[in-house]
Amino acid sequence: MKQRIAYLHTLAHTKLMKLRNYPFDLHNGADEEMKTRLKRYVCRSHYFSLHYWAQRITDEVLDGLQELADQCRLVEQFKEMKAGEMMNAVAGVKSEQRQVLHTACRDIFSAEPCHAAATDQAVRELGRLRDFLAGLDSGEICNEKGEQFTCLLHVGIGGSDLGPRSVYEALKAFGRSGRRVCFISNVDPDDAAAVLRGVDLSRALVCVVSKSGTTLETLTNEKLISQAYAAAGLESRKHFIAVTGLRSPMDDPDRYLRSFYMFDYIGGRYSTTSMVGMVTLGFYLGYDQALDFLRGAARVDYEAENPDVRTNQPLLLAMLGIWNHSYLDMSTVAVLPYSQALHRFPAHLQQCDMESNGKSINRAGDVIEHMSGPVVWGEPGTNGQHAFYQLLHQGTEVVPCEFIGFRRSQYEEDILVDGTSSQQKLVANLLAQSTALACGRRSDNPNTFFPGNRPNSILLGERLTPEVMGALLAFYEAKIVFQGFSWNINSFDQEGVQLGKVLATRLLEEMKSAERKGQSLEREILKTAEMV
Amino acid sequence: MKQRIAYLHTLAHTKLMKLRNYPFDLHNGADEEMKTRLKRYVCRSHYFSLHYWAQRITDEVLDGLQELADQCRLVEQFKEMKAGEMMNAVAGVKSEQRQVLHTACRDIFSAEPCHAAATDQAVRELGRLRDFLAGLDSGEICNEKGEQFTCLLHVGIGGSDLGPRSVYEALKAFGRSGRRVCFISNVDPDDAAAVLRGVDLSRALVCVVSKSGTTLETLTNEKLISQAYAAAGLESRKHFIAVTGLRSPMDDPDRYLRSFYMFDYIGGRYSTTSMVGMVTLGFYLGYDQALDFLRGAARVDYEAENPDVRTNQPLLLAMLGIWNHSYLDMSTVAVLPYSQALHRFPAHLQQCDMESNGKSINRAGDVIEHMSGPVVWGEPGTNGQHAFYQLLHQGTEVVPCEFIGFRRSQYEEDILVDGTSSQQKLVANLLAQSTALACGRRSDNPNTFFPGNRPNSILLGERLTPEVMGALLAFYEAKIVFQGFSWNINSFDQEGVQLGKVLATRLLEEMKSAERKGQSLEREILKTAEMV
Repeated sequence: MKQRIAYLHTLAHTKLMKLRNYPFDLHNGADEEMKTRLKRYVCRSHYFSLHYWAQRITDEVLDGLQELADQCRLVEQFKEMKAGEMMNAVAGVKSEQRQVLHTACRDIFSAEPCHAAATDQAVRELGRLRDFLAGLDSGEICNEKGEQFTCLLHVGIGGSDLGPRSVYEALKAFGRSGRRVCFISNVDPDDAAAVLRGVDLSRALVCVVSKSGTTLETLTNEKLISQAYAAAGLESRKHFIAVTGLRSPMDDPDRYLRSFYMFDYIGGRYSTTSMVGMVTLGFYLGYDQALDFLRGAARVDYEAENPDVRTNQPLLLAMLGIWNHSYLDMSTVAVLPYSQALHRFPAHLQQCDMESNGKSINRAGDVIEHMSGPVVWGEPGTNGQHAFYQLLHQGTEVVPCEFIGFRRSQYEEDILVDGTSSQQKLVANLLAQSTALACGRRSDNPNTFFPGNRPNSILLGERLTPEVMGALLAFYEAKIVFQGFSWNINSFDQEGVQLGKVLATRLLEEMKSAERKGQSLEREILKTAEMV
Repeated sequence: MKQRIAYLHTLAHTKLMKLRNYPFDLHNGADEEMKTRLKRYVCRSHYFSLHYWAQRITDEVLDGLQELADQCRLVEQFKEMKAGEMMNAVAGVKSEQRQVLHTACRDIFSAEPCHAAATDQAVRELGRLRDFLAGLDSGEICNEKGEQFTCLLHVGIGGSDLGPRSVYEALKAFGRSGRRVCFISNVDPDDAAAVLRGVDLSRALVCVVSKSGTTLETLTNEKLISQAYAAAGLESRKHFIAVTGLRSPMDDPDRYLRSFYMFDYIGGRYSTTSMVGMVTLGFYLGYDQALDFLRGAARVDYEAENPDVRTNQPLLLAMLGIWNHSYLDMSTVAVLPYSQALHRFPAHLQQCDMESNGKSINRAGDVIEHMSGPVVWGEPGTNGQHAFYQLLHQGTEVVPCEFIGFRRSQYEEDILVDGTSSQQKLVANLLAQSTALACGRRSDNPNTFFPGNRPNSILLGERLTPEVMGALLAFYEAKIVFQGFSWNINSFDQEGVQLGKVLATRLLEEMKSAERKGQSLEREILKTAEMV
């Protein structure tokens, strides 16, 4: 097997451990050095510029991080992943033993894709989707009355929900007129009840998404929605479509108008560019714009193969994160998009990052001696400024921040107030926050003193289009994967979610027994604990 | 001035510092001790039971926390706050110097309210609201065509947005038929554009909320919406209402159909039970149900006056939080409601908690020598289970969890699948997660090993009604305030948000100058930094 080591077993680590004692002091913000840093610490790519002068780094630190990236073989591993190596595995123990090929779903624009077989499968599914969408447009596929479908009800949870949902929300401005999407995910019956109230079932497609075809929440919600269809005198079979694994229990043409497939080599949280997201996005955006979304992702997947930390954006952001988390001991990271459209994107990243890198063993099966992934959280600015930014600026906990912004709005419906547009106000606030966090402010009044030295970076794009959203998604996927490689953990399994599932299933068996109905919570907990 | 000290200057602190070295081991979950703990570590109140056996505490720790609460005079200070003492102040420096009387807004059911004058003002505003709502019902207040208003567009940001929004979302099931509420908060022009697309302006009331009457985002959005009204040939004055401070620039009867008032002694993040939330909730829920919301809050405000840590729920949860954060060094806390209706409640708490307690100086004006408030985050279960729970169970970062659940659903539209209802599944999952986090699981396979000892508590209610939502909100407000008192910080100002505002305003002045338009981001940042 090719060499895989964690950051703390590299030579670079020794160097960085020395440098961590003297992180760059950002207070000297306004002097000549600042000008140099502003120009020097920018990394540009096709879609974004990444401004990182406000990180507590120097050229020496960057050199150390480059060595660390090289010695951990981060980019080589990324390429090995794309080429189909079995990256989802832990040596010596039972593990999923799978390839990790979400990148193949969008590697459809290159004459020589990194993994031809997986890309072939993706292309085949995309072709089937294109035909299906054309059938909807032509009226060939329609409801009982011959009317077109106007709403798609997306039913999934976790990776089958958050990715598609956050991208749909991000691209609402680009939808085809007369079409919308609703989501049901939680097993909470109130989630389904609230959503179903606002949907005309006769004009809705129901897209049920579960790779295994056995997800408790999703199957329960599917039944609940089927009942609603039956009650309305409508036939589920004419409205329900499935996205699932080949030969899963849900792969059943008798139940679904159409089935689209996802494959074992794509994990739920990385599945937005597979049929999991594409059916829903294709319905809403139309096929061509959905393809633009893939185009952006594919381009970033290739940009991320560049071994140079200073010019490979996702690699750079990953390494800055390693510096803040593993060297400067910051335990969380905030993602702060200055774009209301991205309001669910931090939640998606929270999932993708924490489920990938919230681990305690390495890929050799040993308990790790270092911290793995951080807690990821965030809300859009400027809203957050009126909420938790108080702690960011003056709290005792230092939170590194990743700002995301755009020069132009999506709808391009803006207003000049006091001589500036809302979009200008949005960007001005982003820049002001970044600078305030970094430079701080001296004051004799301790209550208006800002300590500064709070590291942050700005990822700036021109406009949040489908293509740019694809790029942004792939950017963060690559960042997460690079960090997982740095900690030498398996970022692609999720054994940590199993125990809760097992206990819940057993507890439900208990609850079923009629004689125990109405039993006290204490008794229920005790029963659960006895099952551990 | 009455004595105010931080936890680390109490005698109890010495005791707790010893106990922190041997936190209770939760692995011994399933034995006899577990039964005792399950029964002993429950705290019941009118609305909730709080189950805290899965905290790493013993009776000795609880005794220590009781002494700490006593020695910090937490409950006395809470009562002093309710009685109108100037709690929003920092000695020796310029500070807001205000009373903190959000509790007075709901102290309207007692014959002898804690602060009669403030409650009188609240009652007066409630009377004006009742009359306004009656006018809407009778058709006396209507649009240009004599039609009733069907939508309320709530325009505010931060404290004027998140509280009302999260409560509205939580109580959607209880709305009056034919009425809905939309929110615009972000200065991002796409936020307004997206919302306005779905609103029939002619049937909408626009409720503009800003205490100061000068909030940049809110005024900008108000102008943008006014323009849309003008473009539709409608008169703003017949649709716009204001919630603002007496004599603020927004207190202008020429511009608004009606103005409702909030007062200096209520901070934005604590203002949901003032007119800030009540106008919107009154419109949607009707006056009587909105009053139920206040009733729940008022009851908890009185329950919180009980000095006994073991029977005062908000005080207990506050002290358990102090134990986890200040003694066991856990830097974040997750709030995990098993109720989709509460999907924005963690964001509200994130604001309320982090803006209140993310501070670095105490109320004597000195820099504190201890950690103040934690990072607060969370998403609803069961969704989160399929997302970040991996890190909660197996990550290297230990995150204390606060579960919230209910026995009955809101809509009471449920389905039996495999012999259990969705609501049962929801509660079973909550209990299973709590137990799994606490007890963990031994395994020879290190990848399926769960370390356990991850502290958590469960707050369980019967059903999330308007009254229970009021109780839940007041519960957390009290918890936050108790923790602030423990750290001896001023939980009621937000000086930390000022610097960013100042810099943004100056940067916008720069952007205005025509010759600088199109200037580079580096130049903009440099300008900003020079202004610090």
